Amino acid sequence: MSDCLFCKIVAGEIPARITYEDELLLAFHDIAPKADTHLLVIPKQHIENLNDLSADDAELMSHLMLKLPVIARQQQLNGFRTIANTGKDSGQEVFHMHFHILGGEQLPGF
Amino acid sequence: MSDCLFCKIVAGEIPARITYEDELLLAFHDIAPKADTHLLVIPKQHIENLNDLSADDAELMSHLMLKLPVIARQQQLNGFRTIANTGKDSGQEVFHMHFHILGGEQLPGF
Repeated sequence: MSDCLFCKIVAGEIPARITYEDELLLAFHDIAPKADTHLLVIPKQHIENLNDLSADDAELMSHLMLKLPVIARQQQLNGFRTIANTGKDSGQEVFHMHFHILGGEQLPGF
Repeated sequence: MSDCLFCKIVAGEIPARITYEDELLLAFHDIAPKADTHLLVIPKQHIENLNDLSADDAELMSHLMLKLPVIARQQQLNGFRTIANTGKDSGQEVFHMHFHILGGEQLPGF
């Protein structure tokens, strides 16, 4: 997707503070952090959001879920909150699926 | 886990307003909703949180991720926010993995 911000980060066309990368995933620091540590974990493949998933994405999604705590531990997070917004009503701003990881402090209620 | 609130809901020992059930998952309304619609989606199997996952849980987790939008659509949610707290610092209160689904209104930032 040539106009997608996160695809441009995957392609290396826009810089990001990357903390984790493998063949399927990329994790990087949010540029407007809402906690002491605020990462975004994205699939390299352009998927709009959870509504856009098909059975073909099963392996990707289990891989992503199993890597979330690994990516959090790399940042010395004892606990962390994972948030994914799906659709405009939820506050989704970039329409390339991303899982926020928030931590590094006692998080307030939501 | 005999002392786990969510295991008791799975076992039918504590009532809940269940909206979805299959062989692996259960979804029900949160008793203290933080949005117009606030569901909890849990694995029937007792898993503490994302830190507790092993490779054996890959199929469960992809199933859960693919079912989140199905469960949200059953409640006529256009958009929805998914939140999972992992560990005390994140605000996790029940140590049986659960994914919040929040929607039914324009959600504020987090």
